[in-house]
Amino acid sequence: MSNKAKVNNGRYFEDFTLGEIIHHATPRTITAGDCSLYIALTGARNPLHSSEPFAQSLGLPHMPVDDLLAFHIAFGKTVPDISVNAVANLGYAEVQFHLPVYVGDTLSTQSEVIGLKQNTSGKSGIVWVRSTTVNQNDTTVLSWVRWVMVHKHARQAPAPSTTLPTLADYVAPSALTLPDTFRSHDEISQATGSEHFWEDYATGERIHHAAGMTINESDHSLATRLYQNNARLHFDAHMMQHSSVGQRLVYGGVVISACRALSYEGLENALRILAINAGTHANPSFAGDTIYTMTEVLDRWALPDRTDIGALRLRMVGIKNMPAKEIETIKTEQGYHDNVVLDLDYTVAIPRRGS
Amino acid sequence: MSNKAKVNNGRYFEDFTLGEIIHHATPRTITAGDCSLYIALTGARNPLHSSEPFAQSLGLPHMPVDDLLAFHIAFGKTVPDISVNAVANLGYAEVQFHLPVYVGDTLSTQSEVIGLKQNTSGKSGIVWVRSTTVNQNDTTVLSWVRWVMVHKHARQAPAPSTTLPTLADYVAPSALTLPDTFRSHDEISQATGSEHFWEDYATGERIHHAAGMTINESDHSLATRLYQNNARLHFDAHMMQHSSVGQRLVYGGVVISACRALSYEGLENALRILAINAGTHANPSFAGDTIYTMTEVLDRWALPDRTDIGALRLRMVGIKNMPAKEIETIKTEQGYHDNVVLDLDYTVAIPRRGS
Amino acid sequence: MSNKAKVNNGRYFEDFTLGEIIHHATPRTITAGDCSLYIALTGARNPLHSSEPFAQSLGLPHMPVDDLLAFHIAFGKTVPDISVNAVANLGYAEVQFHLPVYVGDTLSTQSEVIGLKQNTSGKSGIVWVRSTTVNQNDTTVLSWVRWVMVHKHARQAPAPSTTLPTLADYVAPSALTLPDTFRSHDEISQATGSEHFWEDYATGERIHHAAGMTINESDHSLATRLYQNNARLHFDAHMMQHSSVGQRLVYGGVVISACRALSYEGLENALRILAINAGTHANPSFAGDTIYTMTEVLDRWALPDRTDIGALRLRMVGIKNMPAKEIETIKTEQGYHDNVVLDLDYTVAIPRRGS
Repeated sequence: MSNKAKVNNGRYFEDFTLGEIIHHATPRTITAGDCSLYIALTGARNPLHSSEPFAQSLGLPHMPVDDLLAFHIAFGKTVPDISVNAVANLGYAEVQFHLPVYVGDTLSTQSEVIGLKQNTSGKSGIVWVRSTTVNQNDTTVLSWVRWVMVHKHARQAPAPSTTLPTLADYVAPSALTLPDTFRSHDEISQATGSEHFWEDYATGERIHHAAGMTINESDHSLATRLYQNNARLHFDAHMMQHSSVGQRLVYGGVVISACRALSYEGLENALRILAINAGTHANPSFAGDTIYTMTEVLDRWALPDRTDIGALRLRMVGIKNMPAKEIETIKTEQGYHDNVVLDLDYTVAIPRRGS
Repeated sequence: MSNKAKVNNGRYFEDFTLGEIIHHATPRTITAGDCSLYIALTGARNPLHSSEPFAQSLGLPHMPVDDLLAFHIAFGKTVPDISVNAVANLGYAEVQFHLPVYVGDTLSTQSEVIGLKQNTSGKSGIVWVRSTTVNQNDTTVLSWVRWVMVHKHARQAPAPSTTLPTLADYVAPSALTLPDTFRSHDEISQATGSEHFWEDYATGERIHHAAGMTINESDHSLATRLYQNNARLHFDAHMMQHSSVGQRLVYGGVVISACRALSYEGLENALRILAINAGTHANPSFAGDTIYTMTEVLDRWALPDRTDIGALRLRMVGIKNMPAKEIETIKTEQGYHDNVVLDLDYTVAIPRRGS
Repeated sequence: MSNKAKVNNGRYFEDFTLGEIIHHATPRTITAGDCSLYIALTGARNPLHSSEPFAQSLGLPHMPVDDLLAFHIAFGKTVPDISVNAVANLGYAEVQFHLPVYVGDTLSTQSEVIGLKQNTSGKSGIVWVRSTTVNQNDTTVLSWVRWVMVHKHARQAPAPSTTLPTLADYVAPSALTLPDTFRSHDEISQATGSEHFWEDYATGERIHHAAGMTINESDHSLATRLYQNNARLHFDAHMMQHSSVGQRLVYGGVVISACRALSYEGLENALRILAINAGTHANPSFAGDTIYTMTEVLDRWALPDRTDIGALRLRMVGIKNMPAKEIETIKTEQGYHDNVVLDLDYTVAIPRRGS
């Protein structure tokens, strides 16, 4: 006697309904162990997440969890319901880091279906969801929109009416939030190691971060499992041998975190991520790839009611198996350079001079 | 000058005496770091071990440590004294999870030799031990019987008289224990993601869990070292190159944990392991193997004085490099299917409907 | 527009000035997660760092962080300023473990340039630095001298006058420190598993530790990143393909920790490292190497004002891909045996009998 009903095979395209709210299971309490693993997996050195006294000197009660660790865990919660059957993770928008997450916080995530479009092939469709993560006090700490291409299970299932959500090109400066108690001070360089502040970055400037990091098979498997992201294509090599790529795919979040950590040298004072405006995984990454990073300054904004801290809108480009300084053209009309694996538009908080 | 006496080479068959009590060294305090690593190594998503508010909603003071993490650490303590020279780990019985283990608890283990039988070859013998693990308050949290085949050092050493312990086929429902304060409630599905409760599982039912997980060399090495299990065959590749298998063996506990984590999809409400009734590592596992899992419901029991929670006796079969749904016959008279790596008979606590 | 100034490429030989004090960035708070990872990476079983009740029984407030974990993290802080451009890490001396480090402590490190000598080639030079690590109370917990060979950036840069520091052959017994409250007792063997105490080790004695541990690529990458050591040659495989060794080098600290953990069997009561007197990474280690360890007792010292605990000066030899008992000659006039990867002279605290 076999009971297929017990095994949740995930939703197919025809299972999504516009306006539907999906409460994702398995809330997660974040611990000091998660933070150490994040450092071991990425080499992240941002002292805001590594030094309790430094975090407290900035007005925070404790060192917050790395922004991307919190994001990956929150995101992982949505996978069983949203993207287990995804053909591709097409993009992100309006990712907001509303409040810091601390060790001991418990994150729960829900998603609303905000857009649907069946593909002309009739075999799949695109689903847009807006996900929101709250902590144990029901306060929103993270929210984002993503869209994925999902297979249809029954090809003859009727197509939903097409609804395309209106998405902002970027999170507006007025919507960016920092904790009230978070204040810059004059001794930040001692902890970060850099004298480069908000005023020192110019629109159009490119920083070719020197270091590369090779992603080992176990590294990305550990990361994906730590985030409780159950998308099989990241850790089931037997299944992936029979796929078009022939091997496990590295979870895109692993690449984002590698690039963020590698770009520390040159962005040492970019203490907090405020938003991700857009993101594309331009090419797949596999174990053995070495990731390099290039940053381009897209814009420089003052923040509302803030003279001590400003915002930089940055483009973070992840490049595999080629140092960042060797790449000239990221993208042409024909598409991305074969070595580009990530093109992320994001916004960071960075102290201003003389604050 | 060489001092061989300083290096403990472990006990050989003739070094065990019936009734002897062995106090195992290196007590271990379990931390939040151990729990995070366990999630990263297994992808475990059981919210009882991942969400502090969920654990508290069930009447526990904190989220307990994953049952199998506690077991592997407790078990690891016995390896230097019991099985460093083992030819094979033959079986488990009467494994009982008496009380939850929490972060901050310190586990100490001792073993009693309860059975001895020299093999007819005269080169080795079988040793049965009953091991008991207490926490820092000297309260028993775990106990189990296992038997191992151990080499003789001196072939001419006299054979002990044969004593075979009487072992229960399974831990009886009356012996299963749950903490007094542990209570089910109506909102469990929100955390676990499943509406399948005790009443929904039928004896003979089989669940073919869909996901597989590939075990990387570093994954199982990290796990074995985390458990402070010093059996060299798991992490000394130089030595194992000259063995019959030619490579490192994956510690059997790594396979048990992989299967337990993979079977979450279909057993989401099986919150706590109460007992392991029997277990066999049917074939060895090596790095690169992808583990799949099949569960068969063996029995369904009420628990003494409990209307909110019942027990399921389950058979968890681990299969390498073949999806669970593709295997028909686990075992014939000739023995196990070549791809079967684990056959475990265990008992879980699962809430009842309308509790 | 490219801004090279933003990327810190590290100091070259001509950038060091005698007497200069360098404050290293990114202070680090050590957590329980770091300690669990250290166990998972090394298999360390020293109960002083694994059992809270055992540490307290010895008069400490909590279990201290493994001595080498604290050292590697403190050391990692110096890499961006001292050795990112190092050709080779030539040696250590006068490494002192002044006080235990505990979970929650925040470590900050500074270094003083105490020696300079340009090589006759004119292409590089040797820099000696004395580094000091303090905790959040500004109390010194670690200090050490190391010397590295660093490239010159501009060959025509003038050579500094040569200054060679005077370094002690070993840290004198009178300079070794144990916490005042740290006291031995009669039940230590129960926790460590060994009856061998200070009196049982004789000068000249050699212990061939039996176990070997294979270093996987991911193991050493995780360790190096956990220590926030950003020396690229350990984790950038793309860059290292074009180097003379053709692959990533294992960070020397990983080898030291492997040897220390492997030498537990035979040195179970060597609870605390007091000093590292000298150290050489005799040959490089690569992923896949299996590390074995031989210990030679160099000396046995009483400690000032202590009858309960003495010191052993030990030589710890790391050997790759060859069991310790198979090596006869560690070093000849022609240099080290090809399989020797580490030759470390260090001092441990070990309880005396009947204490």
